[in-house]
Amino acid sequence: MSILVGEYLFRRLKQLGVGTVFGVPGDYELALLDLPSKEGLEWIGTPNELVGAYAADGYARYKGFGALVTTFGPGELSALCGIGGAFCEFVPVVHIVGYPTTASQKSGHILHHTLGDGSYDHYIKMSSELSCATAVLKNAATATAEIDRVLTAMLTYSQPGYIGISEDIAYSSVPAAGLDVPLHRALQAPNDADAETAVVTEIVAKVEAAKRPVIIFDGGAGRRDWAGFADPLVEAAGLPFFVTTLGKGVVTETSPLFGGAYCGIGSPASVIEAVEAADCILWLGNLPSDFNTGMFSENVKTPNIVDFQRFTVTVGQAQYATKMVQVLPKLIEAIKGSTILIGRRASAAAPARTPHPVPETDILTQDYLWPRLSGFLQPGDLVVTETGTSQVGFLSTDLPAQSTVWTQAVYGSIGYAAGAAVGASVAAKATGEYKRMVLVTGEGSLQLTVQAFSILARHGLPCVVFVLNNKGYTVERYFHGFDSLYNDVPLWDYGALFKAFAPNVTGVQTYKVGTTAELNKLLDDETLSNEAVPKLFDIELAYGDAPYLLRGLFEPKAKAIEK
Amino acid sequence: MSILVGEYLFRRLKQLGVGTVFGVPGDYELALLDLPSKEGLEWIGTPNELVGAYAADGYARYKGFGALVTTFGPGELSALCGIGGAFCEFVPVVHIVGYPTTASQKSGHILHHTLGDGSYDHYIKMSSELSCATAVLKNAATATAEIDRVLTAMLTYSQPGYIGISEDIAYSSVPAAGLDVPLHRALQAPNDADAETAVVTEIVAKVEAAKRPVIIFDGGAGRRDWAGFADPLVEAAGLPFFVTTLGKGVVTETSPLFGGAYCGIGSPASVIEAVEAADCILWLGNLPSDFNTGMFSENVKTPNIVDFQRFTVTVGQAQYATKMVQVLPKLIEAIKGSTILIGRRASAAAPARTPHPVPETDILTQDYLWPRLSGFLQPGDLVVTETGTSQVGFLSTDLPAQSTVWTQAVYGSIGYAAGAAVGASVAAKATGEYKRMVLVTGEGSLQLTVQAFSILARHGLPCVVFVLNNKGYTVERYFHGFDSLYNDVPLWDYGALFKAFAPNVTGVQTYKVGTTAELNKLLDDETLSNEAVPKLFDIELAYGDAPYLLRGLFEPKAKAIEK
Repeated sequence: MSILVGEYLFRRLKQLGVGTVFGVPGDYELALLDLPSKEGLEWIGTPNELVGAYAADGYARYKGFGALVTTFGPGELSALCGIGGAFCEFVPVVHIVGYPTTASQKSGHILHHTLGDGSYDHYIKMSSELSCATAVLKNAATATAEIDRVLTAMLTYSQPGYIGISEDIAYSSVPAAGLDVPLHRALQAPNDADAETAVVTEIVAKVEAAKRPVIIFDGGAGRRDWAGFADPLVEAAGLPFFVTTLGKGVVTETSPLFGGAYCGIGSPASVIEAVEAADCILWLGNLPSDFNTGMFSENVKTPNIVDFQRFTVTVGQAQYATKMVQVLPKLIEAIKGSTILIGRRASAAAPARTPHPVPETDILTQDYLWPRLSGFLQPGDLVVTETGTSQVGFLSTDLPAQSTVWTQAVYGSIGYAAGAAVGASVAAKATGEYKRMVLVTGEGSLQLTVQAFSILARHGLPCVVFVLNNKGYTVERYFHGFDSLYNDVPLWDYGALFKAFAPNVTGVQTYKVGTTAELNKLLDDETLSNEAVPKLFDIELAYGDAPYLLRGLFEPKAKAIEK
Repeated sequence: MSILVGEYLFRRLKQLGVGTVFGVPGDYELALLDLPSKEGLEWIGTPNELVGAYAADGYARYKGFGALVTTFGPGELSALCGIGGAFCEFVPVVHIVGYPTTASQKSGHILHHTLGDGSYDHYIKMSSELSCATAVLKNAATATAEIDRVLTAMLTYSQPGYIGISEDIAYSSVPAAGLDVPLHRALQAPNDADAETAVVTEIVAKVEAAKRPVIIFDGGAGRRDWAGFADPLVEAAGLPFFVTTLGKGVVTETSPLFGGAYCGIGSPASVIEAVEAADCILWLGNLPSDFNTGMFSENVKTPNIVDFQRFTVTVGQAQYATKMVQVLPKLIEAIKGSTILIGRRASAAAPARTPHPVPETDILTQDYLWPRLSGFLQPGDLVVTETGTSQVGFLSTDLPAQSTVWTQAVYGSIGYAAGAAVGASVAAKATGEYKRMVLVTGEGSLQLTVQAFSILARHGLPCVVFVLNNKGYTVERYFHGFDSLYNDVPLWDYGALFKAFAPNVTGVQTYKVGTTAELNKLLDDETLSNEAVPKLFDIELAYGDAPYLLRGLFEPKAKAIEK
């Protein structure tokens, strides 16, 4: 049996759970795009490559693997910001790039999309900075091995890979037999048995010895490989647990043991007290980036931290070369077998929670909005929040059961959320795990990728978009230049845009919201909540309005600068 | 006198004629953005970085130099496609990137916008593939020398440069004295006198000896350094002249000596005959890219080609290391001094032109539209056309005097035109050379950068936008997959979008045009033509409609594939 190289690639992707390929067509990839549908994959074209890259990232966070196809040169370069985000946040997106024929590459002619200097190597060099593995397929004899090498590296490191595929090689015939050998998944290889026993025993002993142990769910734990461990761990251990900005959405928050979100000095007093006084922390996927740690203001005091990572588990100062994916189920069983821990479970204390006081005024503020959204969200909601005030503010919103949220808090690329929501909604439809997409973004961020509306309204789940319109790049106002011109954002009509991007989608609803009364009226309207049509709320907030968590972080700095 | 490093940079840009800086604010660059206004430079924020990069390119094509400011990481990566286009089309855009402080760069902390691995070198490596010079300023003592090195290279090669500027270095004090020394402009250094005399003599002899000499204005000649030579050369030589796709707009087309556009096999018969039978060609800025040569179907037969380039002039097989910028004025004088050539001028024949027949139907087609636009354009129009059918079709539109056009035909990045129109209109306003911006784009291309509308309507000259809406990526249909799903483009309401992106701009007019009668009624309306308000024409064309020049290039291929 023989198969085309392009078919081999898409069939491998299907084996990895990819059902949809995103991208923008370009002439060096057009023939390649005839192949996904033959392999049972769906193609979703996006208005531009950056939206496509974010969509593939959003898709990959849910399905475990994502794919983006662009054309050589301008197409691929326009996607790099999205690939960079996937790289640093450990999202496996394969970037497939349509290259000119191998003959063209050798010709020295000035083809369009080249840099005009006869070299075809510039772009792979650029992508190699953002990829765990790269290849440009120029030889049919090695093409399938190269494909497998890149995809295997992606499975191992959970990061993007780059596959350039020359037009002629895509249509070269190769043996199909390789497809019968599953790709090697490094995480599935067993841990050293002694090391695994030692680390589990050590962790159980630490928790047993502790008086105030807690669990923190963090960014690393948000990736697909970790799915399924969070709730069982909470259930087995019966410990108070917290999330970080990046960890929010990993675990079910309706548990009475949920203590809230920890993000350093801006956090509610009850959270700071509970986390910083803990004498043992099971920390899943610790990812100490600035945005995820309240600008490095976390102040955990105990040395008894168990740091679960992809390839290692560290207990205090001792690192074990054991993969979390295998340690965690064994740890859960070991906890269940500990009479000490079982005994404690009955008396597990729900951590006291002190919500931030909400101002009593009809002027709508983020301090009012975020807790209010808790009551609007429903089981089955899939939420994506944007970098900036939405990301921080949503820490004050509680998630219902069977719902989740994520945000891009390491890379922090504004514009991410709208694109990611597209891919996430497509993936959610495919998995059947979610019922509704909720996008929460600021108007400044939305302006980068607003054309994502076109796909969001058309292809995905019913969607609800909240645009936080506070007249500027508000998080940047807090960084520097509160009233500077460069932090203003041009005025757009977001409701009209939402409709104009999808004029053939029926029933689209858009609302302007300017007061708490207007907000409550809309959010309380059950018909409106339940109608499965795209909706947009243009939330008008005061200039510079920001959630208290953000103000808490930056106001001391802002005041210091002003003096 | 001392000065801040950031001030030094912006003052250098001002010396180079930059009056406006484009970009998107990000926190590593916010303090830097306090400085342009202090140096008398205007800041124009763009909705995203890709639009900003295209705008800086459009600006640089008119003013001779452009500047873009983005933030480290996501911001700069989102601009790379625009920088790549500037690189291969020889447009000097300096990409200024705000870096974290030098202390942060040394800290190893996971700052937002990094790739999470502690390295700060990834992004400069990426940009070095697209830049004639790069620097990251980490040391105040060498910062001004580094700035001067990058800017000088840009002046020399007319290509982008990259300057990363650490937050603390931007605010470090350095001596201002360096600013008194003008930057070295390599093009201004005199040619070797003997070589220059020899090449001018040789060229004049070639032209004198020829029976059917012609001039071709090509892509290289579209850059600012060449401005001012085209029309005087035509006037002195009195020779029939032609333009290429990239050369259109370089020269005044109302001259009776203008013969039309040459683009290989798709060109009108009269052009093919005149150019391919010429026995001597003065070829200014020859740039033999695929899109610029009718996919390499140019078929010039004479060996007597004088190829004028930035650093060399080649006569037949002999290359002279002489810069065109100095050869051209001397050549013009020498031609004026040639009695043979002066004698011939009186009898200089206007080349016959055979316009392509226009179908007599009320259904609007591009074959009707392009010649029809000739009558709509006015002196003072500045036109930008998009890659694809607009770029090819506009070869059938004649430009009035005091007007110009350009397009990005080497890089061919769809989405370029809308962003470039923003920068061009800002530059045109500053130079006072133009009265109106005309953007001609296809709906598929527009979807990549549609948010440029927000700035175009607000900051620039009065603008007229033609959206060619033919239900797909039409040039790609001709490449491959004429009826494939991936070549369809989602339906948007372009008129509504144009208004919604600039709701506070008054008088915005939008029209849907579906027939030749509707088109003529609108284009003949003088009030409408002269009103200085933003306008958009949503031109509805039949599925797959394309100009005859494009069909001529691809239909043989398309038919061959179908068989």
